[in-house]
Amino acid sequence: MTKRAIANPVRDPEQSRARILKAAREEFARNGLGGARVDRIAENAGINKRMLYHYFGNKDALFRAVLEENYAHKRDSERALELEKDDPREAIRKWVTLTWNYYIAHPEFLNLLNSANLHHARHVQASAEVKKMRAPFVKMMGAVLEKGVSQGVFRPGVDPVQMHITIAGMSYFYLSNQHTLSAIFGRSLLSPRAKKERLDHMIDVALSYLERR
Amino acid sequence: MTKRAIANPVRDPEQSRARILKAAREEFARNGLGGARVDRIAENAGINKRMLYHYFGNKDALFRAVLEENYAHKRDSERALELEKDDPREAIRKWVTLTWNYYIAHPEFLNLLNSANLHHARHVQASAEVKKMRAPFVKMMGAVLEKGVSQGVFRPGVDPVQMHITIAGMSYFYLSNQHTLSAIFGRSLLSPRAKKERLDHMIDVALSYLERR
Repeated sequence: MTKRAIANPVRDPEQSRARILKAAREEFARNGLGGARVDRIAENAGINKRMLYHYFGNKDALFRAVLEENYAHKRDSERALELEKDDPREAIRKWVTLTWNYYIAHPEFLNLLNSANLHHARHVQASAEVKKMRAPFVKMMGAVLEKGVSQGVFRPGVDPVQMHITIAGMSYFYLSNQHTLSAIFGRSLLSPRAKKERLDHMIDVALSYLERR
Repeated sequence: MTKRAIANPVRDPEQSRARILKAAREEFARNGLGGARVDRIAENAGINKRMLYHYFGNKDALFRAVLEENYAHKRDSERALELEKDDPREAIRKWVTLTWNYYIAHPEFLNLLNSANLHHARHVQASAEVKKMRAPFVKMMGAVLEKGVSQGVFRPGVDPVQMHITIAGMSYFYLSNQHTLSAIFGRSLLSPRAKKERLDHMIDVALSYLERR
């Protein structure tokens, strides 16, 4: 089936939903919430606009659904690591590496988050789906830190949310601001060597902090 | 003189330039490079559009001038600290604190950087002004790190640019993504207490890394 073929939403609603979400993710990532056009999303999904509204209500609801899908996808990737079963230092290495690799593999996620923040995250605030992901995520991060404390390798009292923001921020800023940083400092930030150095540095930073007495 | 009074660009070109830059900074920060309108900038600067083009050429050149002014302002704030004269640990505390306070006081700078990156930083790449700031900035950061090494308090071999990106990233992501983070984790990120905890955490992270043997 080519991209513009018309899907049969009655016969295959799941597939139609998935195609709309994929087209919407691309459109929102490219043009932001403000610049995105539902016409284009419908056309690229190969579905008529009336059916799109039937599935998702309006543009804001569609943007929310795209964000929910992306958060769920990232949280699934994290959960699949089963970090709480690992040696705590190894868990931190994996946690930093996953965050880094996820942002590199999904630059559209960074664009979506920028757009969501421009609109003061009202779509995330309105999402029960995203709220549901909170407790398991914080619990997993907390379990990694506590295991490190109980083994005597990590300092006690570290707030898992604070740690998450630090780990995410070190990757996020490097990648989201790669063009300005590269122009200012006159160096390639995405050569294989630069990427390896960055990842090693971030793991070292996270572990230096956690292992400090 | 009220905002919409017409400045006399012939009699006071410096003031006219400054007024255009201020209006442009606000317009670009609010609407991005794509959405910004030169008409609105001219009106808010109280200057006619013909004179605006006389001073700045076109919208892209104006955006570049705004970025240059902002980078210069931030680099001036950093230089004023004279970090290289400080105790190295104290210098790192001040460096993290300045970065944090600067982003909090100038949220428009974060918006401008997001917009610049969306356009692959071609305005920064084209700027000789920004390039001129590179060497003094890297030199200052390098001097702080080297002083710490020579005093035996910091580890050797830390790349100042890598360290800068880590320090900036910890603040930048927390602030630029404050709305999504706050919605996801259900907590205020900008209460006085949360801000203090964040700053203490970031200083601790930076020093833990640098002081590690």
